[in-house]
Amino acid sequence: MTVCRPRVITLLTDFGNQDAYVGIMKGVIAGINPFANVVDICHSIPPQDIFSSAYLLYSSYKYFPRKTIHVAVVDPGVGSRRDIVCVETKDYFFLVPDNGLLSYIVQEERPKSIIRLTNSKYFLPSLSSTFHGRDVFAPVAAHLSLGVKPQQLGIKINQLEQLDVPNPVQKKAGRVEGQIIYIDRFGNLITNITKEYLVKGTGGQKPEVRSMKPDAFEKISKEKILSKYDTIETTIGKKRIVGLSKTYTDAKPGEPLVLIGSAGFLEVSINQGNAQKYFKVDKGNKVIIKCNPGTIR
Amino acid sequence: MTVCRPRVITLLTDFGNQDAYVGIMKGVIAGINPFANVVDICHSIPPQDIFSSAYLLYSSYKYFPRKTIHVAVVDPGVGSRRDIVCVETKDYFFLVPDNGLLSYIVQEERPKSIIRLTNSKYFLPSLSSTFHGRDVFAPVAAHLSLGVKPQQLGIKINQLEQLDVPNPVQKKAGRVEGQIIYIDRFGNLITNITKEYLVKGTGGQKPEVRSMKPDAFEKISKEKILSKYDTIETTIGKKRIVGLSKTYTDAKPGEPLVLIGSAGFLEVSINQGNAQKYFKVDKGNKVIIKCNPGTIR
Amino acid sequence: MTVCRPRVITLLTDFGNQDAYVGIMKGVIAGINPFANVVDICHSIPPQDIFSSAYLLYSSYKYFPRKTIHVAVVDPGVGSRRDIVCVETKDYFFLVPDNGLLSYIVQEERPKSIIRLTNSKYFLPSLSSTFHGRDVFAPVAAHLSLGVKPQQLGIKINQLEQLDVPNPVQKKAGRVEGQIIYIDRFGNLITNITKEYLVKGTGGQKPEVRSMKPDAFEKISKEKILSKYDTIETTIGKKRIVGLSKTYTDAKPGEPLVLIGSAGFLEVSINQGNAQKYFKVDKGNKVIIKCNPGTIR
Repeated sequence: MTVCRPRVITLLTDFGNQDAYVGIMKGVIAGINPFANVVDICHSIPPQDIFSSAYLLYSSYKYFPRKTIHVAVVDPGVGSRRDIVCVETKDYFFLVPDNGLLSYIVQEERPKSIIRLTNSKYFLPSLSSTFHGRDVFAPVAAHLSLGVKPQQLGIKINQLEQLDVPNPVQKKAGRVEGQIIYIDRFGNLITNITKEYLVKGTGGQKPEVRSMKPDAFEKISKEKILSKYDTIETTIGKKRIVGLSKTYTDAKPGEPLVLIGSAGFLEVSINQGNAQKYFKVDKGNKVIIKCNPGTIR
Repeated sequence: MTVCRPRVITLLTDFGNQDAYVGIMKGVIAGINPFANVVDICHSIPPQDIFSSAYLLYSSYKYFPRKTIHVAVVDPGVGSRRDIVCVETKDYFFLVPDNGLLSYIVQEERPKSIIRLTNSKYFLPSLSSTFHGRDVFAPVAAHLSLGVKPQQLGIKINQLEQLDVPNPVQKKAGRVEGQIIYIDRFGNLITNITKEYLVKGTGGQKPEVRSMKPDAFEKISKEKILSKYDTIETTIGKKRIVGLSKTYTDAKPGEPLVLIGSAGFLEVSINQGNAQKYFKVDKGNKVIIKCNPGTIR
Repeated sequence: MTVCRPRVITLLTDFGNQDAYVGIMKGVIAGINPFANVVDICHSIPPQDIFSSAYLLYSSYKYFPRKTIHVAVVDPGVGSRRDIVCVETKDYFFLVPDNGLLSYIVQEERPKSIIRLTNSKYFLPSLSSTFHGRDVFAPVAAHLSLGVKPQQLGIKINQLEQLDVPNPVQKKAGRVEGQIIYIDRFGNLITNITKEYLVKGTGGQKPEVRSMKPDAFEKISKEKILSKYDTIETTIGKKRIVGLSKTYTDAKPGEPLVLIGSAGFLEVSINQGNAQKYFKVDKGNKVIIKCNPGTIR
């Protein structure tokens, strides 16, 4: 007898932790597949903040085992005509409202199939108009984890909605304009400027937001970046930070620094402090990278 | 060989997430039944808020698989003479302090037995006076999940404490006075006026707060309500909302609406906004439903 | 065939619940050991607050089953030269940055071995400088749960970093000066004065912070303390509380009391209220215990 590996189902919602919504979804899943391993990615997304959700899902999905079912319910359109889709890629399944939540991910995971959910056989028998997390997402995820095929869930479609994800822009040689796309608990300012963009990106080219797979991390080291840009100068508001650090403790406690964060994006931080408070900035604010023009090849 | 389904134990407490109390309970459970599937319903109940807890437990319990053990520790009387009880219903077990936490549930789940916990054999060997979650609730729940019978836990009693649950009142024909019993993360105002009450309730009758089982949902649709009350007018503070929506997006972003929420109660919301802030109201505040008198049969 | 007990891995971090950091760690663990039972102890530690973490870990670890792997990532020095260590005691494994997180625990659990992690075979293949929770702690914990021996992880060392844990001080006979080491969600003020210290401690002796094992709890009851100190008077700020209560409800709602809390420390509380707000105090503030000098033997 083989004991099967329990399938992982992840949950990312804006339901918060103060109500019972997340627990209810887990109840529905346990009723259908008692062996599923349900893992919370995050439930404290600001209500209906699709951009932050897209970033968080992107920063986490690839650290889960193959065949994980990633469920994201940040869904301002619940009950309206927006679709719910099951997207299968080489390694993962995604179950999301079709509102752009996968905008970052589809840049590095090519969808093998996109199915619009229509088969109510896999929904709860009675469907509310306000809590599809419970009535649609949870039961469908549980059925997927039992081996139901995406094709059984509905109708194949060809395209996903895309967010207008902000990409870094090279205004002129040696000057890249990015913006803050996420701020974490520690006040670290995560920008849309990727490690790869710093190495390969030039003015005219579309910046790439891809290949953050664990085994790709080492390929582009800080050293590689620095071999191209001897000095990197980051301007945020009226403040300037010179150089690229390897870790938070490269700066003195309370001092600002810039590094490549754990998800592969350029990040502005304060060692043992809070960069959001220090710089008084918010998501969407500009971050400008100036590279010593003489050293750009 | 049959691999048994892991039994589900749910936890609902006011312990918050900033201390280790919930984790400790899970440690105790894992030590007794390593295969139990422990699911958090909510731990962010305002300290000692029995009313909110009763609502949350009611809104969630039935979405869990049969034989789930629901543990609720919102317990201002910890260490005093209040009882801890194990209540068995047709499908579930409840382990709660006897302080009214089951007030909504017993209106739809008839207790088969109520046992007052006295058998310290199932408690931790040394019993503190301040943390019964760890010393009593967790180990007893774990033992129940291993097949211990409620009867082994203590002494049968006949009655449970009841909260003075506020019921809607029909002041005169076509005018129902309810109140806000819960406000969720999104600021949605959940009232004590149920879908069923709107359909069946008349002045003299006791309103029913029951039959929210998933398969009962479709039986009373919005259409049914509307066939009875052509127009429903909701007054909250000095503001009036006309009509009953099906889903949040029936109103424009920022606009108020009234719908039947996912737990079956009349709910006042703002599409993509926060109704609590919009109306500046709190739990306990009145919500008045005026139905077009001409259409009431 | 024997179905193995799933090994428990606990997580205590300062990552908060608003980002995906904790979920990512669980993803990494599930990829290596899909049968591990991951339990959250706490993730809401104030950023980089090692003292609170040391207390929370101490108050919880012993309630988990034998062979549990306790992982604590509160790590202001991430990426710097601080070590990550695996500490094995008679019953448990601890995986922590070597920054004093085990300061309370090593007073009661003698380390059998302390290993400094060096074997990158058990890390993620590419190692970031900023997220060792994901790249080191999670994979190493998962490998330990599969039976890897601490000795395989790195190099044996002899000593752990210690925090300067504040101990109570007996200034003169009958007057003990302690301080608040932790404040929980309810505003309960947990001091560094242990039950044991009250019974055994005298002026010159080093206070003991040990032996809180569940089965040791009953050995030192409130009665035993009172037989020594007939009346205990606690001063906090300018307020005085007379007597030692057994449980919160020994005082009237809104009234202050002093008791031995669930982790074995003297605790100042308000029945159904918040002692931190009531006394306007914070961690580190003094708490003075005056015992009726006539009754001290």
